[in-house]
Amino acid sequence: MPFIDATLAEIDAALKEAQTAFLSVKNFSGKQKGRFLRSIADEIDALGQTLVAKAMEETALPEIRIVSERARTTGHLRMFANLIEEGSWLEARIDTAIPDRVPAPKPDLRKMLIPIGPVVVFGASNFPLAYSTAGGDTASALAAGCPVIIKAHPAHAETSELVAGAIQRAIKKCEMPKGTFQHLHGTAFDVGKALVQHPLTKAVGFTGSFAGGKALFDISNQRREPIPVFAEMSSINPVIVLPETLGLNVAETAKKLVPSITLNVGQFCTDPGLIIGVENEDFEKFIKALAEEIEKIPPGTMLHQGIADNYEKKVKQTLAQDAVHQEGQSDIEPTQAQGKALIASTTAQEFLKNPVLAEEVFGPFSLIVKCKDIAELYSVVNHLRDQLTTTVIADVSELLRHSGLMNIIREKAGRLIINGVPTGVEVCPPMQHGGPFPATTDSRFTSVGTDAIKRFVRPLAFQNFPDSLLPDELKQSNPLGIWRLTNSQWART
Amino acid sequence: MPFIDATLAEIDAALKEAQTAFLSVKNFSGKQKGRFLRSIADEIDALGQTLVAKAMEETALPEIRIVSERARTTGHLRMFANLIEEGSWLEARIDTAIPDRVPAPKPDLRKMLIPIGPVVVFGASNFPLAYSTAGGDTASALAAGCPVIIKAHPAHAETSELVAGAIQRAIKKCEMPKGTFQHLHGTAFDVGKALVQHPLTKAVGFTGSFAGGKALFDISNQRREPIPVFAEMSSINPVIVLPETLGLNVAETAKKLVPSITLNVGQFCTDPGLIIGVENEDFEKFIKALAEEIEKIPPGTMLHQGIADNYEKKVKQTLAQDAVHQEGQSDIEPTQAQGKALIASTTAQEFLKNPVLAEEVFGPFSLIVKCKDIAELYSVVNHLRDQLTTTVIADVSELLRHSGLMNIIREKAGRLIINGVPTGVEVCPPMQHGGPFPATTDSRFTSVGTDAIKRFVRPLAFQNFPDSLLPDELKQSNPLGIWRLTNSQWART
Repeated sequence: MPFIDATLAEIDAALKEAQTAFLSVKNFSGKQKGRFLRSIADEIDALGQTLVAKAMEETALPEIRIVSERARTTGHLRMFANLIEEGSWLEARIDTAIPDRVPAPKPDLRKMLIPIGPVVVFGASNFPLAYSTAGGDTASALAAGCPVIIKAHPAHAETSELVAGAIQRAIKKCEMPKGTFQHLHGTAFDVGKALVQHPLTKAVGFTGSFAGGKALFDISNQRREPIPVFAEMSSINPVIVLPETLGLNVAETAKKLVPSITLNVGQFCTDPGLIIGVENEDFEKFIKALAEEIEKIPPGTMLHQGIADNYEKKVKQTLAQDAVHQEGQSDIEPTQAQGKALIASTTAQEFLKNPVLAEEVFGPFSLIVKCKDIAELYSVVNHLRDQLTTTVIADVSELLRHSGLMNIIREKAGRLIINGVPTGVEVCPPMQHGGPFPATTDSRFTSVGTDAIKRFVRPLAFQNFPDSLLPDELKQSNPLGIWRLTNSQWART
Repeated sequence: MPFIDATLAEIDAALKEAQTAFLSVKNFSGKQKGRFLRSIADEIDALGQTLVAKAMEETALPEIRIVSERARTTGHLRMFANLIEEGSWLEARIDTAIPDRVPAPKPDLRKMLIPIGPVVVFGASNFPLAYSTAGGDTASALAAGCPVIIKAHPAHAETSELVAGAIQRAIKKCEMPKGTFQHLHGTAFDVGKALVQHPLTKAVGFTGSFAGGKALFDISNQRREPIPVFAEMSSINPVIVLPETLGLNVAETAKKLVPSITLNVGQFCTDPGLIIGVENEDFEKFIKALAEEIEKIPPGTMLHQGIADNYEKKVKQTLAQDAVHQEGQSDIEPTQAQGKALIASTTAQEFLKNPVLAEEVFGPFSLIVKCKDIAELYSVVNHLRDQLTTTVIADVSELLRHSGLMNIIREKAGRLIINGVPTGVEVCPPMQHGGPFPATTDSRFTSVGTDAIKRFVRPLAFQNFPDSLLPDELKQSNPLGIWRLTNSQWART
């Protein structure tokens, strides 16, 4: 079913409707908004197999993945419902007045986070449910009290329509203003551009390519009033394999890493695209083991033809560079829109001088960088651009001898993993899914986990307000029983 | 004493030295950094009358103001020392592992805030101590663990040198790396530009004009890696006077407002530059009372000739607009570099159509906007650009009948004040000194109060880390006894 791109008039009408909704939704209680989020989750569940089948059809992702992604999506919605019903996330701070302070009385001052206004969310091609229409960006914006306008991803526009329908039903059931959530289509870049440029838009959520995210960021900064663009863009998620530990676990390490490279045809933003180790006999065995594992992985259908074409192009480009050797791939030839898992290797010397080798190859590909010695490994790590994640495979005693390395990688990623894999991003309060530029446009925020809500709020201070005019969160009696920093002490009574 | 502008080579050397310092300072404990901040405060106090005299000489501010600003500066430093010695500000979040979770085990995940790297701070002309060399930006960046490079404000370069000397002595006493704090001079815009463009700079703090702040913001966004620029830029801090309450307190309200307009020749970013009320007999009396109070204020010497010239120019420009009437000023003529307090009035109709009338006039000036009725007052408030503060003068019963007005002003400022004045920015946890663009470049952060530290940090997640490799803040036993969100429960044990 073809959808028609939203016109400028429709975009303008949508933002005005969103702004109207905002003027009431911003004052809704955590309980009201929580009920709405739970209702969205229930309505998504109620779509049952219809949604699963449509998402499978549009994305070529397997049923097990769609079902687990649906659970992640509804889980995210219910997690934010819990967060806002409880209410302590608002960072309430209270200093009571000191009328007899000299030389001047101290006024009563109270502060909490308030929603910023209409948020535009771009559906992500690689997460048709969890980072699209009712995904993490939408859930966190609605939880904050911000209306959302979705620009559906054209690669799964019908899936997006189904989810949007579920949200519309939740809006009716919970008697939310109709502008709380709106759904637009757009294959042309101009639709996204107009949404970001509209003066009533107050923030943007995006997950996708560096080119796409950076373009939206630049458009925002040229507005009369620049707004935050939270773009999660590009990361090659390096895995550093330290030599001593590797010597003990060659086969096991390869078996752990390959599924992380290849699951769902490698279409995760935390896919490990770079493996860095020290050249020796163990490392050669490890490369061989990786190659053997990769050879067992048949080609898989990618999200859409464009992604498959781009994957093929980027793999070819990488293999065409000097001193790059193919190490392993399946014997089966990919058909149209399929991507074939492949690993290649190069030398640290080459990697250090050729920036093409540090570019993201979105798909089931990983490049192995062979370092002459540990000093060269440090040089390679120092040379890396910033990332969503960095993983180190090593046991504690070996890690302790490399505190310098740990010190370096701390500056280059949003999440550090020891002896694990970067894929499988947990949805929980300590998750940081974000990282310094170019991994994202703003390393201070996360797009996964409860703290994702902080992207769509700002603090507002109330000075000398009578209790009756304060929001419940800041009233003297603490009627909501939330944690607050009162006169520099944390308490909830 | 003339100072020479820093060269590009000196700027590069400073950033490299700062980066070297960062690699150790970032791992310093809250106690180590707290000791350093206290030592800076002590060294500033030890400068005694030398500092006071020099600041008075360079800024023309009176002794009482310099002494209180020094107390504010050392108070800020000691407040941040308390904050980081206690340690709970780091937003530690911990989810412990669930190895037997199905379908996949849950890893151990821990997150906390870490410093982002070297910060460039521009000294502010209107706060030679509290928002300059050892001011709020510097104190919060050092507290976070970020080295600071100051670009001294040329209007008080010698004061800046004295304070920089105090910080250098604290560095020696506390054995901090020498790149922890560096002090550069620059009268040319190119010095600031080069500091913002340097690849090792990770954030910028600025307080000043809209033109200056926006230029730095734009430079940052053209970097290969854009960085946050926290610019506090422009605000006219509207004061809305509701009619019924005013009727009861005409003289008292005028007497409260005029000192806020005129103190220190009106050179505060929270100076009330706009007074909005409903035209009636009481309001005419109020304007007369304001005029009488203003007439008592003699001209005062401004921070520097440029500010005085600009003030004179902007006042003349405002008075030259259609339907603007001068209401009151002193009879005494200002001498060179002096500014004379002045109030003028206009109609709402004129204010709504002439954008010049909404521009900031930095100095002891305020424009009264006369509205035909309360509906027109709402139109004027709706029309305002965003601000640092908005003040409403009204008693509770009148405010309660204007919940719509409160709803509007919530979206247009960082701090709302009832029956007070916007000047006198308290330094405390609930303070929000910031506001939506164009008041600042980022409404999500504050430049005053403990939360100012959040500008210079980002979250980092640690997955599956052995306890011995975790920072103390995240170790299982909580050796620092800080508040942490552990498995979604706040606790400090």
